[in-house]
Amino acid sequence: MRPLDHTDRPTRTRTEHDLLGDREVPEQALYGVHTLRAVENFAVSGIPLGARPLLVQALAAVKQAAATANRDLGLISAEQADAIVTACTEIRDGRWHDHFVVDVVQGGAGTSTNMNANEVIANRGLELLGHRRGDYRRLHPLEHVNRSQSTNDAYPTALKIALALSVDTLCAAMRRLAAEFAARATDFADLLKIGRTQLQDAVPMTLGQEFAAFAVMIEEDADRLEETKALIAEINLGGTAIGTGITTHPEYAARACAALRDLVGLPLRTAANLVEATQDVGAFVQVSGVLKRTAVKLSKICNDLRLLSSGPRAGLGEIVLPAVQAGSSIMPGKVNPVIPELVNQIAFQVIGNDVTVSLAAEGGQLQLNAFEPIIAESLHESVAHLTAGCDTLRERCVAGITADVAVLTETVERSISLVTALSPYIGYETATEVAHEALESGRSVTDVVLDRTELTAERLAEIIAPSRLVAPAPTGHISA
Amino acid sequence: MRPLDHTDRPTRTRTEHDLLGDREVPEQALYGVHTLRAVENFAVSGIPLGARPLLVQALAAVKQAAATANRDLGLISAEQADAIVTACTEIRDGRWHDHFVVDVVQGGAGTSTNMNANEVIANRGLELLGHRRGDYRRLHPLEHVNRSQSTNDAYPTALKIALALSVDTLCAAMRRLAAEFAARATDFADLLKIGRTQLQDAVPMTLGQEFAAFAVMIEEDADRLEETKALIAEINLGGTAIGTGITTHPEYAARACAALRDLVGLPLRTAANLVEATQDVGAFVQVSGVLKRTAVKLSKICNDLRLLSSGPRAGLGEIVLPAVQAGSSIMPGKVNPVIPELVNQIAFQVIGNDVTVSLAAEGGQLQLNAFEPIIAESLHESVAHLTAGCDTLRERCVAGITADVAVLTETVERSISLVTALSPYIGYETATEVAHEALESGRSVTDVVLDRTELTAERLAEIIAPSRLVAPAPTGHISA
Amino acid sequence: MRPLDHTDRPTRTRTEHDLLGDREVPEQALYGVHTLRAVENFAVSGIPLGARPLLVQALAAVKQAAATANRDLGLISAEQADAIVTACTEIRDGRWHDHFVVDVVQGGAGTSTNMNANEVIANRGLELLGHRRGDYRRLHPLEHVNRSQSTNDAYPTALKIALALSVDTLCAAMRRLAAEFAARATDFADLLKIGRTQLQDAVPMTLGQEFAAFAVMIEEDADRLEETKALIAEINLGGTAIGTGITTHPEYAARACAALRDLVGLPLRTAANLVEATQDVGAFVQVSGVLKRTAVKLSKICNDLRLLSSGPRAGLGEIVLPAVQAGSSIMPGKVNPVIPELVNQIAFQVIGNDVTVSLAAEGGQLQLNAFEPIIAESLHESVAHLTAGCDTLRERCVAGITADVAVLTETVERSISLVTALSPYIGYETATEVAHEALESGRSVTDVVLDRTELTAERLAEIIAPSRLVAPAPTGHISA
Amino acid sequence: MRPLDHTDRPTRTRTEHDLLGDREVPEQALYGVHTLRAVENFAVSGIPLGARPLLVQALAAVKQAAATANRDLGLISAEQADAIVTACTEIRDGRWHDHFVVDVVQGGAGTSTNMNANEVIANRGLELLGHRRGDYRRLHPLEHVNRSQSTNDAYPTALKIALALSVDTLCAAMRRLAAEFAARATDFADLLKIGRTQLQDAVPMTLGQEFAAFAVMIEEDADRLEETKALIAEINLGGTAIGTGITTHPEYAARACAALRDLVGLPLRTAANLVEATQDVGAFVQVSGVLKRTAVKLSKICNDLRLLSSGPRAGLGEIVLPAVQAGSSIMPGKVNPVIPELVNQIAFQVIGNDVTVSLAAEGGQLQLNAFEPIIAESLHESVAHLTAGCDTLRERCVAGITADVAVLTETVERSISLVTALSPYIGYETATEVAHEALESGRSVTDVVLDRTELTAERLAEIIAPSRLVAPAPTGHISA
Repeated sequence: MRPLDHTDRPTRTRTEHDLLGDREVPEQALYGVHTLRAVENFAVSGIPLGARPLLVQALAAVKQAAATANRDLGLISAEQADAIVTACTEIRDGRWHDHFVVDVVQGGAGTSTNMNANEVIANRGLELLGHRRGDYRRLHPLEHVNRSQSTNDAYPTALKIALALSVDTLCAAMRRLAAEFAARATDFADLLKIGRTQLQDAVPMTLGQEFAAFAVMIEEDADRLEETKALIAEINLGGTAIGTGITTHPEYAARACAALRDLVGLPLRTAANLVEATQDVGAFVQVSGVLKRTAVKLSKICNDLRLLSSGPRAGLGEIVLPAVQAGSSIMPGKVNPVIPELVNQIAFQVIGNDVTVSLAAEGGQLQLNAFEPIIAESLHESVAHLTAGCDTLRERCVAGITADVAVLTETVERSISLVTALSPYIGYETATEVAHEALESGRSVTDVVLDRTELTAERLAEIIAPSRLVAPAPTGHISA
Repeated sequence: MRPLDHTDRPTRTRTEHDLLGDREVPEQALYGVHTLRAVENFAVSGIPLGARPLLVQALAAVKQAAATANRDLGLISAEQADAIVTACTEIRDGRWHDHFVVDVVQGGAGTSTNMNANEVIANRGLELLGHRRGDYRRLHPLEHVNRSQSTNDAYPTALKIALALSVDTLCAAMRRLAAEFAARATDFADLLKIGRTQLQDAVPMTLGQEFAAFAVMIEEDADRLEETKALIAEINLGGTAIGTGITTHPEYAARACAALRDLVGLPLRTAANLVEATQDVGAFVQVSGVLKRTAVKLSKICNDLRLLSSGPRAGLGEIVLPAVQAGSSIMPGKVNPVIPELVNQIAFQVIGNDVTVSLAAEGGQLQLNAFEPIIAESLHESVAHLTAGCDTLRERCVAGITADVAVLTETVERSISLVTALSPYIGYETATEVAHEALESGRSVTDVVLDRTELTAERLAEIIAPSRLVAPAPTGHISA
Repeated sequence: MRPLDHTDRPTRTRTEHDLLGDREVPEQALYGVHTLRAVENFAVSGIPLGARPLLVQALAAVKQAAATANRDLGLISAEQADAIVTACTEIRDGRWHDHFVVDVVQGGAGTSTNMNANEVIANRGLELLGHRRGDYRRLHPLEHVNRSQSTNDAYPTALKIALALSVDTLCAAMRRLAAEFAARATDFADLLKIGRTQLQDAVPMTLGQEFAAFAVMIEEDADRLEETKALIAEINLGGTAIGTGITTHPEYAARACAALRDLVGLPLRTAANLVEATQDVGAFVQVSGVLKRTAVKLSKICNDLRLLSSGPRAGLGEIVLPAVQAGSSIMPGKVNPVIPELVNQIAFQVIGNDVTVSLAAEGGQLQLNAFEPIIAESLHESVAHLTAGCDTLRERCVAGITADVAVLTETVERSISLVTALSPYIGYETATEVAHEALESGRSVTDVVLDRTELTAERLAEIIAPSRLVAPAPTGHISA
Repeated sequence: MRPLDHTDRPTRTRTEHDLLGDREVPEQALYGVHTLRAVENFAVSGIPLGARPLLVQALAAVKQAAATANRDLGLISAEQADAIVTACTEIRDGRWHDHFVVDVVQGGAGTSTNMNANEVIANRGLELLGHRRGDYRRLHPLEHVNRSQSTNDAYPTALKIALALSVDTLCAAMRRLAAEFAARATDFADLLKIGRTQLQDAVPMTLGQEFAAFAVMIEEDADRLEETKALIAEINLGGTAIGTGITTHPEYAARACAALRDLVGLPLRTAANLVEATQDVGAFVQVSGVLKRTAVKLSKICNDLRLLSSGPRAGLGEIVLPAVQAGSSIMPGKVNPVIPELVNQIAFQVIGNDVTVSLAAEGGQLQLNAFEPIIAESLHESVAHLTAGCDTLRERCVAGITADVAVLTETVERSISLVTALSPYIGYETATEVAHEALESGRSVTDVVLDRTELTAERLAEIIAPSRLVAPAPTGHISA
């Protein structure tokens, strides 16, 4: 998507005005003077609103729902309403995104985003009605398109819709990833290995258990993320400027919410206290916090994948990640865990973005949080990058992970971690001595145990049967 | 509480040993050699475990529940179990906290905390059984007190119990604070004022609406916080070292959980996947994230209180906070908003602690997160300070806030924000001109409107009746 | 800049291979198989490397310097060197940026960025030599273009050059902003006002003093930022894979550094310990920390500007920010401080990015930090947005700030803060009583003082002369 | 240190008053009514100011320097000055710390800390003069002890002195730690091993090079930290309330700074712009940022130590950390890297504290930052814990690290990383094939090379001589 270049000399322009005076607007632009000012004021990221299609479409849905409610309450004409509805439908179909040109990093609490939408809808509506662009007496961006609305309710409502939809997409990606880990867990169900705590050899487990834990971890995060949707579904549409509902008809909020619910297919509901809902960004902070939780877990999992696949000769080498590209410009044949590394870095971004969101939320003052645009942009990046990260990790890494059975077997055989299983039989102190002797002498734990304790070889074999090592099993008293 | 001074030359000692060799332990100490090593290894904060009584008591509850289950399964003797149960009961009554001497900032994934508990319980149990301290053949810290347990399940289970209890206390403090704000909202229900967005005059509201929003905000955070308790209630007791349940009887986990549930009165349940539950600290991350959300809101509210009470002569001065101390060592008569400032700073700590928790969580590797102690300590500080902050804010600030009615009235009368209410009648563009003229000329909005539009004085009075300004109200078409 | 669309079916392709096998590369592409793999592996942000021209150009400079050194040491032929130098020169002129197509968010420690550069240079070099693209026997991306290099030294060296140049630009923007604040300080030098601490009226100062502080603050941050350039100038070129310099000639590091220094005009120097320099990202952490400091200050200043300009009727209203756009879609005539709000949000991003950088830095392992790409991208965003923010703040806000002298004068006259100036004469306790009486009664401080103390009107006038209130002045003993 | 218990019913009290009215103060307390109010207002952490002796002593030094200047300027009597000087000297000797009872977490911008100091000094001074405590007409906490001062200059000046001294201690601990790493580097200078990038086998290096990098890293952080001392040395003493110097004699600032410089032995200097210096906390933000950098590095080093010592049987096992305690309550014989884990956790605290500091700094408003107390406390914790962490890491870990030469040798012998050294001779593409074949077949790289290339055994032996592998070495053209 390429935004219109508003700096080029357009062959023709039209004149619009605002409280600062007159300005020439490119004739081909659906946006107007308010958008033009905002483009000039905010030149930071170079990323236009049109690059955030979910937000643009959600905002169009809000405008469409408002128009319907306004028409039903007799506040705008049927003709005006029809024009608005058609224009919004077109936007929701993706037709006019390149007229959404304000930078995503912007001051003004989202006003410029709302203005941009109002102007595009009004001008497209005017075209549909057979009038020329800019002839706002017929269909005014603020008096008609924005009727019964303020940026302060329309904008956060749109943000929430866009966020809810993108969170759905992320959850789906997470569940696909979890399923892939679960598939590996099934593949690896019978492969015994040494579990590790604090990077030191601990006790046996199966590689399947290790991968199943990853699956559960991600599933649970998806559950947490879906729980946030109940918060996101609470909107403040109808609160207008500060939540008191000034300029709205008493029936407007309910009607607009119902219309919007139908349009976007989300269980939206109007907040009980709109003054609170208008100044509060708690739902965004909650989502950001859960995204951070997800990031922390994904990063932990990727750290583990990188560690378990370290090598090929001087590392743990228990698993092999699929090679997806040459790893080095200098070291021939080197293959690196580039996909987990990608996800680690996405996680670091998400954790940093959570701090950005916290600061922006804390900075809200009195009846409004003026910093919602950066909250929106931070959440967008976090959700989008995590979604890409989950899909990439699944397709290009987890799907192709294999186990190095020889390595796994060898480490189990060399391990002294069997002493833990014996501890209930021979006591912690004796077991400590056995472990020490085995480690020092290089002898196997079983040899040392048979030497030093009264356990018979048969009993010992029974105690350390793999099936008993990786799950609870009946034990007896310690023989004093 | 003063910890025993283990560095003083004790008049008598007893000899204990571990894998590093023999050490003299002060005869009067209930702790043993493992604790002694840990005290020497970890000298960072100077704060002993005993200063975290909820954790000590929760750990004693875990040990007591485990002893009951172990006895019922025939894994320790009834005599041993009784001694353990009595010792744990005493600890839960607060009797031996000064023997919990390991620094709260410690390496080792909580092992030293668990060791400290095991040793205190064993030695106190030995006393109760009529044996001398250190005679571990009769009652061993690891073979009996720690039977069927690992630090890796006992410790996080105790952390969760302590956290659940302290979160309850915080929620109660938050709801008390919310109620106090609600009481002020009732007091101020009829006081009209100018609402502000982006620090600029917006539209009218009541001071009651402003304070009601604070009440709702805090109530909702308490709701969110209580939701986290479902996660905290999921424990991994019975998973032992890495979640496979090695060294446990198949019935142990269920029995221990049931016994613990009865002891602490929380709806604890055993996690479905103990391998996952043992390495995952997601519940802590979630709690920390919600605490951060709470902190962000409290800070925002305190910022507002400080702003609304700024003055006395050169500020907004809409409300007056109760004076609780002289504000300045140089400026006589100055009174400062020290209580909101206190809460702001607590909030900053909590937000910082959330980053600490994120880092510690992300740093977990393979089957365990070795950094749970700093997670525990960070959460402790966040919860405890927030609780103190809420109570202090309520008692020493919110309870005594009064409104300056003269200031409120004057700003409403001077305001040009009425034009918003008129906008649906005269249109946005005309209203903009009215606002501009009123601001430039110093005339009132009503005067200018009567001059420039066809609205009659009666109609105007009706439109801007206070009751219509602070809530939705029927409006008509804009007269073109 | 639009990247080549590598997913379109090209009419013609050439076959390249890597360790994974053969792949068709679009014939028109200057990049090769390694780049193609990376584009497929890393589909996250949608932002190609070409959108970071400073980095692309810096990398070309590194390659050019290396080629020169390699030629002088006889490691590549003069013909090869010439081709590389010309290709690099073209890239540094901005000719081939649209062939730098790998996503800026990427795994692999920057290898794909380096590969992309190697391939573009090799293929462009082949063209220049009259060979076809892909005929790498003549000029090989790795054997010739990357000769004596590893990603692990070439890439961070390029990052540092790009960063140093962008930091220069930021510092210049900061100093321009500081100068603008200083100009306002001169304009406002004689305007007396009430200074505030903790949002409460404190003691008199001039508005000029207030703005001069902003100027100094920003100047000092620019100083701090320039200090970091000494760290950024330390490069590890010649260390190759892990800093041991494997595959390099003993004279290579010095020769390449000298050549690079000449090319980019920065005082680059080779780190004393290249093993340390290769794994360490401390210079980036330092820059990020100072950027965070700058962000914190800019945000504080913008908070102040928004507060001082609050109103127009119900705020402090001491200064007026220039109107740059209509502030509200619902509130006619409202003007908001959108430019300071923009800068606040940029600051929140920078502070969040600093956490991302910290996490990425902490995650480095052993001989390399694999997460440099996200460090680079975070620093890029922080520096670029801060630069835009400083320029926007200067041009669209600070340049047009005016003072409301009437408001300033009135608050000084109403203030009770004169008591502080009297305190050395009448004592803190008496002054407290005077303040209290003035506040309660509404009388002026001077009236009350004349009533209650032995100070004469003449002496009083002398003590509270404006020139004595805003600077140190001789005082005497307190009359007991 | 145990604070006086002010809640106990004292047998005797004295009556003091402030602007809120009269209060009974325990007769034995050196503090007065202002401190008492603060103790009641701020009950958060339970940690009294007395637990921060450097701050208490620095504040006493400030008071002593001010008294000297005030005396010399004739603003207080010689008798009063002498009493203040003696009282301050006693405090600096640690005599009255238990009378510093205000919570370290406090609102009010440090006023209560300053008040506490003023009151203790006044009452101790009164005792020295033979008067009773509370007889403030003779020596008043505010009129005499605080003469020419405000909290807003005295408090941050004291903070900086305390910080400078504690930073010195930390730097010393860091340099000792660096020296210990350097000693290990010498011990391990000849031990060849495989270096790793992205956790994958890279190229050879010595274990000495690995440890030398740690030493350099920490040294450089100490250098950075010492650079911050220049910023900390800039004080605002003499600025009083907002930096205008109100209530001070024109010569006071210079005299007080000179006296203070002599007392504390630091190169203190008065800031050029005291208005800026009074509201700015940039120096603290800078120190916090560098502490965060240090934390990031220490954590990275500890991660490496834990990774390199992982095992004993199923890990990398290249080095052995000294055992300092038993590692597990369930796994006999297990030894964990508890000391590096401790330092990791301290690092996480420091990184979180940096966010707290950033938030507190950003929250400053207009002429003062009211949140300096939490900045002070956060920095205190960061510096103190890092100091303890460095010393503990050195003494209990680094000093006893040994290498497992057998493991190192075996991994070098098994490694395929030699192909990188051969790449300049046989080309990247051939080298890739060699690596692949060696990895698949299990044959050694040298065998495969001799088979597939024209290199002779002699030439090969020369190329891969260890001394050439770990440093630059002359190479020739690649034979096509």
